[in-house]
Amino acid sequence: MPKLVHPNTTVSTSRFLEALQGINHTGRPPIWMMRQAGRYLPEYRAIRDEAARHHNGFLTMIQTPELATEVTLQPIRRFGMDAAILFSDILVTASALGCPVRFVEKKGPVFDTPIRSPEALAALRPASDAVPHLQYVMDAIRMLKGVLDVPLIGFAGAPFTVASYMIEGGSSPTLSHIKRMQYNQPDVLHGLLSQLTDVTIAYLKQQVDAGVDALQLFDTWTNHLSVYDAQQLCFPYIQQIITAMNAYTSIPIIVFCKNTGVLWPDLVATGPTAISIDWGCDAVHMRACIPDTLALQGNVDPFLLYADPETIEKRVTRLLNDLGHLPNYIVNLGHGIMPDIPVAHVQTLVNTVKAWGS
Amino acid sequence: MPKLVHPNTTVSTSRFLEALQGINHTGRPPIWMMRQAGRYLPEYRAIRDEAARHHNGFLTMIQTPELATEVTLQPIRRFGMDAAILFSDILVTASALGCPVRFVEKKGPVFDTPIRSPEALAALRPASDAVPHLQYVMDAIRMLKGVLDVPLIGFAGAPFTVASYMIEGGSSPTLSHIKRMQYNQPDVLHGLLSQLTDVTIAYLKQQVDAGVDALQLFDTWTNHLSVYDAQQLCFPYIQQIITAMNAYTSIPIIVFCKNTGVLWPDLVATGPTAISIDWGCDAVHMRACIPDTLALQGNVDPFLLYADPETIEKRVTRLLNDLGHLPNYIVNLGHGIMPDIPVAHVQTLVNTVKAWGS
Repeated sequence: MPKLVHPNTTVSTSRFLEALQGINHTGRPPIWMMRQAGRYLPEYRAIRDEAARHHNGFLTMIQTPELATEVTLQPIRRFGMDAAILFSDILVTASALGCPVRFVEKKGPVFDTPIRSPEALAALRPASDAVPHLQYVMDAIRMLKGVLDVPLIGFAGAPFTVASYMIEGGSSPTLSHIKRMQYNQPDVLHGLLSQLTDVTIAYLKQQVDAGVDALQLFDTWTNHLSVYDAQQLCFPYIQQIITAMNAYTSIPIIVFCKNTGVLWPDLVATGPTAISIDWGCDAVHMRACIPDTLALQGNVDPFLLYADPETIEKRVTRLLNDLGHLPNYIVNLGHGIMPDIPVAHVQTLVNTVKAWGS
Repeated sequence: MPKLVHPNTTVSTSRFLEALQGINHTGRPPIWMMRQAGRYLPEYRAIRDEAARHHNGFLTMIQTPELATEVTLQPIRRFGMDAAILFSDILVTASALGCPVRFVEKKGPVFDTPIRSPEALAALRPASDAVPHLQYVMDAIRMLKGVLDVPLIGFAGAPFTVASYMIEGGSSPTLSHIKRMQYNQPDVLHGLLSQLTDVTIAYLKQQVDAGVDALQLFDTWTNHLSVYDAQQLCFPYIQQIITAMNAYTSIPIIVFCKNTGVLWPDLVATGPTAISIDWGCDAVHMRACIPDTLALQGNVDPFLLYADPETIEKRVTRLLNDLGHLPNYIVNLGHGIMPDIPVAHVQTLVNTVKAWGS
């Protein structure tokens, strides 16, 4: 099923990897989209509908390397994105620790046994025993590396965001359980964050060994926290992960979090290669703030893709005129794409980027 | 039922009003809390349980001046807050326009006929005909002014946030209907925002006539928007309201919105007396950014009130040591208080502020 897409480009000359190094002089910035392999694509929905005949369709897609590979390739085939991101989920590390997640249509992830006690924490697998349970990810990476001709991005959820799902039991508008736990059971919370840090490091190392070309860490829910709390619960663990990975490999690491317009100095201090910014801050202002030694990724409003093609082209062209000439800028959304975005609007976004400057 | 609380202070010497003018030299900053009249108080729940015997208990509380007055007074009586805020809801302006809202326990506001077409917009009452439907608010204000000895804050929802509920049909994690409407039916959206602006101005003027001592505008959901979209959908309407109110009265106007850490320059430009900041930004940094001619209100993390009293005292004291000496600072939360916060923890917050510097 997987097949070669663009036989004329090679990973070694990728403008995506060059932008991460700050040396993209190809005339336009690279583009990829968070959640680009997803429900807005009819070819994705076809695979998903097939997988839905299994007990847990979404997990089946993630855990079957052939399906994960196919779904990862779909946006590359259709749009010629400049990078592929492994089709998986940030919560696989929680599952690997022995805290199983289910994905419920229209509701999202559900943990039937949330982690809210020392006993629940103690019952988790040690991090060292967890990663073998993620072998299917490595199989998908190796399969993808055999057929892809654009860089492959591996990823993991950052400890705070993964812990928030494990503790809340799923999505939550306020994260009030984890916020209570930091006061009522700080040892449990920091124990879980440490264990997630360990498993994330081991997991990302295996992804590197399997062949990914870049990594992205997702700490999506930092926007729920005060700056002080983010400094206690998020950044020390992100920094541990980045420090460990930088000691292990030279491949670039992108960090994504929300409330980037406020939290960027703390993010910079964690030592990543690039910062992926949300859509609530101004990209030009952020580029002026964040040191030039770090690449910048983002921050197209994901809801701009609801607009008519003319508006999309106009707004994206303005962004490109501002930042497109930089050697260290990557076009992306400020959050994952919504499932009800018309495919033609994504095509307009990609066409606008590819036509710019030529 | 309502009775005088602190016969020894008068509104004219209120540290709250002095802080808004930048002349508070009373030795400590004033304190009040967004949603201070609310479900975390047992005496509030007693009134609510009584009102629940009516068809729509929450609306009954809002629309019955005696009940609204009693509930407004409860946190003043219990904690001696430095200001009272009228017990009401930001969505009463929507109801007054003829778009009725219901409040459903554990779900929040529901609009059974959301505004999503030119016809739905056209069917609304003209703004000039709407305000008489809010007479019960003026009655509550007059009743409160007869018994209160701290300043009374009137308020309204800003047009974007009120419109978001009217268009989404209630609370929404993404506001995707209103975001689509700005592209698909911009005339309907801006028509609604204009009509809300008009009714808000008329409503706030009547609140001033009825005797409120200060006003607060709530544009809670600005954090869902890109800076560009907030500049299209929020700030022009806020500015219209503030300009109209400043031409009508000299009483101070506080503006609250989310993503303050990014949006503060646009907020400053709308011309308010004070900016109430969310809890996702650093208050000391914000005070350094926002011109001294504007007072600053906020930004205690509402979830800090889950902590033990010692932690609350320690963190609030740090904030006070940083900003408490300023003549233009007001202690408040960065968002409304959560309904499951222990009353004793609020008492700790208030005690810490009142004991500081003495």
